[in-house]
Amino acid sequence: MTTTTEQATTEQATTEQATVLPLGELHASLADPLLDAMTFLNEVTERYPDALSFAPGRPHEGFFEPEDVHAHLDAYLTHLAERGLSGSAVRTALFQYGPTKGIIADLVARTLANDEGLHVDPGALVLTVGAQEAMLLVLRALCATPEDVLLVSSPCYVGVTGAARLLDLATEPVPEGPDGGPDPRAVRAAARAVRASGRRPRALYVVPDFANPSGTSMPTGARAGLLDAAAEEGLLVIEDNPYGFFTREPGSPGGPGGFGGPDGAGGRPTLKALDRRRQVVYLGSFAKTCFPGARLGYVVADQEVLAPDGRRTLLADELAKLKSMTTVNTPALSQAVIGGMLLRHDCRLRDANGPARAHYAANLATLLRELERHFPPAERARLGVSWNEPEGGFFAVLQVPFTADEAAMEHCAREYGVLWTPMAPFYPAGGGERRLRLSISALSRRQIEQGTARLAAFVRSRCPRAAAD
Amino acid sequence: MTTTTEQATTEQATTEQATVLPLGELHASLADPLLDAMTFLNEVTERYPDALSFAPGRPHEGFFEPEDVHAHLDAYLTHLAERGLSGSAVRTALFQYGPTKGIIADLVARTLANDEGLHVDPGALVLTVGAQEAMLLVLRALCATPEDVLLVSSPCYVGVTGAARLLDLATEPVPEGPDGGPDPRAVRAAARAVRASGRRPRALYVVPDFANPSGTSMPTGARAGLLDAAAEEGLLVIEDNPYGFFTREPGSPGGPGGFGGPDGAGGRPTLKALDRRRQVVYLGSFAKTCFPGARLGYVVADQEVLAPDGRRTLLADELAKLKSMTTVNTPALSQAVIGGMLLRHDCRLRDANGPARAHYAANLATLLRELERHFPPAERARLGVSWNEPEGGFFAVLQVPFTADEAAMEHCAREYGVLWTPMAPFYPAGGGERRLRLSISALSRRQIEQGTARLAAFVRSRCPRAAAD
Repeated sequence: MTTTTEQATTEQATTEQATVLPLGELHASLADPLLDAMTFLNEVTERYPDALSFAPGRPHEGFFEPEDVHAHLDAYLTHLAERGLSGSAVRTALFQYGPTKGIIADLVARTLANDEGLHVDPGALVLTVGAQEAMLLVLRALCATPEDVLLVSSPCYVGVTGAARLLDLATEPVPEGPDGGPDPRAVRAAARAVRASGRRPRALYVVPDFANPSGTSMPTGARAGLLDAAAEEGLLVIEDNPYGFFTREPGSPGGPGGFGGPDGAGGRPTLKALDRRRQVVYLGSFAKTCFPGARLGYVVADQEVLAPDGRRTLLADELAKLKSMTTVNTPALSQAVIGGMLLRHDCRLRDANGPARAHYAANLATLLRELERHFPPAERARLGVSWNEPEGGFFAVLQVPFTADEAAMEHCAREYGVLWTPMAPFYPAGGGERRLRLSISALSRRQIEQGTARLAAFVRSRCPRAAAD
Repeated sequence: MTTTTEQATTEQATTEQATVLPLGELHASLADPLLDAMTFLNEVTERYPDALSFAPGRPHEGFFEPEDVHAHLDAYLTHLAERGLSGSAVRTALFQYGPTKGIIADLVARTLANDEGLHVDPGALVLTVGAQEAMLLVLRALCATPEDVLLVSSPCYVGVTGAARLLDLATEPVPEGPDGGPDPRAVRAAARAVRASGRRPRALYVVPDFANPSGTSMPTGARAGLLDAAAEEGLLVIEDNPYGFFTREPGSPGGPGGFGGPDGAGGRPTLKALDRRRQVVYLGSFAKTCFPGARLGYVVADQEVLAPDGRRTLLADELAKLKSMTTVNTPALSQAVIGGMLLRHDCRLRDANGPARAHYAANLATLLRELERHFPPAERARLGVSWNEPEGGFFAVLQVPFTADEAAMEHCAREYGVLWTPMAPFYPAGGGERRLRLSISALSRRQIEQGTARLAAFVRSRCPRAAAD
């Protein structure tokens, strides 16, 4: 048979012809130092499993129990039955392909109203596979050509610069102001510079609350100013809010003038809550408020889209069209389990996260206290060491008088048994070489005390002026 | 306070300035007729909920029970515990962010060995959010510039042409031969034409078994020939295999010369099973063999990638880097539930799908028998009606002597109470205007009988020569 002969020939050719793909012929994002930096970080973490790690931004898992998954799932299925769905319809909802926009938009909308005072049409929501997919969809929808530029606050979450790289989109950094968040004047200047270069500044990506990696938050008063600047420059604002709940002193930041939802919970108003022009696209995630293993996020996109034939849709509908080409729809399993969790907490995650909020707040306070203890003010100035004091979230930034790069990080892991994240990869246009990010979310208070002691020893070992001690 | 004034101004601006985004300023894929066609199909399906529908390609759900989800999940967690993971490590696996490549590659590899005789290194696997995400990642990795062209068999699954549109990649159709699958000569011709136009033909997308939408399968003998042609033209082959299990006569197609796995199950060899040059990237899905609500797919990418510094990785590792920018990782929940299902079936889905395979086979046989009954040979020729006779899968194609477009489809739903899918959107370069796709997966045999009768009445009503009846 011809086939047999061909197979024999093929087999013989094996060793000579096995496919080898030169990296340079694959998409350029694969040779991006940003992706390599992330890979390196993961590798180092695996190589030093016993090191205390200030690196991962993952939530504390002490609140998770496998039995809860069953209870959440059952709660959602019962809810469907109570809404009048037949057994067969419940089965379809759980097991089949589902609507591209998702099946729990109503529950998410109720939760946003309860927790953030955000009143959104469930039709303006798209459930996504983490906020990461939402970012990808929003960037893809908004940036039509290589001339469309995304402004990003700098330092910037690598997820958004990475998504832009995957889509071959240009980003322009806007430096964070001293108070946190991009300064409105810097936004205007960046938008004008982009326009002067013949391109279109399309949107501004910002994490106003406890940003990753800087930990900083925008003052309440600056938020409306940022929206005004963006509107004047014709920019949409992409607000990413994974950490908003986790204020260091629950109810306090922003003080009495801050936003108080219907339940009187504290925190500052989101940009979306201040949005009067529908200029804000809001990205949310259940990774930190429920758990990451469901990989559930969402986007609120209530902007109107006008077709040439006069038809009007919401941006959310357009994002759903794109989503049918990335993941078809978000797993019903994940939506059912998180939906059940929302139902069991009466769609109030801020309350449900009371213990988690207390945990993160205490951890952050511990880190700041221990840094203070190891580096008293006078010595701090002498050594050239400083840090910021975030009002909440998972991260703080330590400034040191030496290059805090991958080599330094690996040395620190090997010799001092403590891990952290170099900041430079978070700066799209360079910078941050002497900064490191410290995450407190996944450690215990005891580990933070030990880790800070080890970190202080490492920092001293690298400080030119520490020899005088 | 300044803030108050600013907010008041902002509020006043509301009605005049609410953001409206012209569709023409969003990404061009959103104005693509392909996406509109899919939206239209969904809308019509919703408008005629009582119509018998040959449209959806979703699996039969009579085999799904919600209790099974709990049992599958528990089976996977027990498996982790038996492998020696502590309670805390099990919790981490289920609830946290996880490895980008996934957590059940070992179980999927065992299943591929049992069911397809495919022996793959688990390290060459990436678990994805459906095969759709795998397609997106593979296209993104392989197509580095606008000069890189994807060849697709035509008619072609819309998921792959859609993913290409999202990434602004060019596709070139290669017509399916009369026996199913792209003809090797047509592949060579298309590759050379692309090269002559100054671009690079990069890969060929093909569904060798029971293709969506055509239902056809490549003959066994043609498969090695296709691989040879692709290798000569420097093309990787992207093999998508969602329907391979569902032969009309289990064990028979391909006959004794066909591939028999270790369990003696029938079917033809996958292209990947014949791959001696590592030239095939294999896409798999659990949507049809387990259930779609988990949204779990995977890609086998065992090609070596060579970096300029001499480091070697697998293409799977590069895909994982990209995946960290699309969905970070595939939901652990979905992987745990499908992993448990695999374990409970001893990693043999072909056996586990015995009842499903019998169901689809009987349905397809029913459709073909009913078409035969309503259109006997002589009349068929007179009317200009014909259809193909797939050996398995979910789909068959009916050729009619009139334009089977959206208007015809809506008329048919309204007046005859039966739905189907126009084929034209599946032809990237035009064609298929007088063809319609019939899916048998989600109907009962009784519904297929009724639906075929209604469809036959509709077809006669449109046939110019039917008046003579």
